[in-house]
Amino acid sequence: MTDFNPTPRTTLRRLPQRGTYEREVVNRILDEGLVCHVGFVHEGLPVVIPTAYARADDRLYLHGAKASRMMSVLRGGARVCVTVTLLDGLVLARSASHHSMNYRSVVIFGAVSAVEDPSEKTEALRRFTEHIIKGRWAEVRPPSKAELNGTTVLSLLLEEASAKVRTGPPLDDEEDYQLPVWAGVLRLKTVAGDLVADPRLQDGKEPPAYLRQYRRDL
Amino acid sequence: MTDFNPTPRTTLRRLPQRGTYEREVVNRILDEGLVCHVGFVHEGLPVVIPTAYARADDRLYLHGAKASRMMSVLRGGARVCVTVTLLDGLVLARSASHHSMNYRSVVIFGAVSAVEDPSEKTEALRRFTEHIIKGRWAEVRPPSKAELNGTTVLSLLLEEASAKVRTGPPLDDEEDYQLPVWAGVLRLKTVAGDLVADPRLQDGKEPPAYLRQYRRDL
Repeated sequence: MTDFNPTPRTTLRRLPQRGTYEREVVNRILDEGLVCHVGFVHEGLPVVIPTAYARADDRLYLHGAKASRMMSVLRGGARVCVTVTLLDGLVLARSASHHSMNYRSVVIFGAVSAVEDPSEKTEALRRFTEHIIKGRWAEVRPPSKAELNGTTVLSLLLEEASAKVRTGPPLDDEEDYQLPVWAGVLRLKTVAGDLVADPRLQDGKEPPAYLRQYRRDL
Repeated sequence: MTDFNPTPRTTLRRLPQRGTYEREVVNRILDEGLVCHVGFVHEGLPVVIPTAYARADDRLYLHGAKASRMMSVLRGGARVCVTVTLLDGLVLARSASHHSMNYRSVVIFGAVSAVEDPSEKTEALRRFTEHIIKGRWAEVRPPSKAELNGTTVLSLLLEEASAKVRTGPPLDDEEDYQLPVWAGVLRLKTVAGDLVADPRLQDGKEPPAYLRQYRRDL
């Protein structure tokens, strides 16, 4: 698939060297993230809601209960801005102003459309489960017809998208490099912690390998 | 300080038991987070940008280079929605549809105003640095007059705000509890990884204790 074409909205004005329109970079960030922030306009005002998502080829899927406010506003084909941000480190400079963060983010602009076809909808729900935990879908009870009907799935074409990436050490003013301050990067990562069994878990049921070895940065 | 009053925008329609208007809960989430997502309307369309922030009492501060697109759009006093999300775990149910995430999020609505007073501006910049790494401000070169002039600082009153929190095990349909599937929560956390020294760091300079013992969940 070809890369994205910059548009006035996705063209970086400042620090353009941090921007990229490469589809592979965008896809990799989307596939590592767990939560996106969906922006939309409701009654003339901006609203930003965190939610899960999944990618399938050149589409991003969002979902929610039909009764949810976000879904009832978006269902009709609203314009959205969907942003995914991965935080990789704190950038510690010698001056306060040059402190920064290392991160990878994707911003997507577009209009969502509701997925009505039951098989595309089921496939999207499979992608949601597999996006969070690869291997999970095959083990769990699939959605019932009633669950499918009660869920709104929205599709957003990855067309007007861009990534922004900062890596590496701080960039200090030349005269500040002599200051006696520790400078560098404190790496941050999201890691899997304890597995907490459901209090109602059947006796002796052990967690599967895909949970014991869970990691996101693959 | 008193808690927040629900407004039509901050009143949860679905799962209202997850919502809270307690100022202490909101403040704690804001103080633990590192990145917020700022939503605003530009040329009629929604835009969501990840950025750093800091809190001081009942105000949230945002900042950026004067030349940045976001700052030039917001500077005039634009309406924003600022959202901070902390991801605490993956909630693994016995059915696909009941999968969820444990999280803590804050959504703030309001209009920003530009901070012009130099001492409030400097104090806000101190808060940014201290928000990321407590103890850092005292060690680094403070902002120069030129840096102060080149930075836009925006203030947002914490007035129309709410938090949403999900904790605990999955909630499955009663008949699914007998399914032979491991269910529970996989905890996630953001942790400090390696300290990577700047290649131009002075010989023998050791990282301070506040970096070696860095953690966010205090």
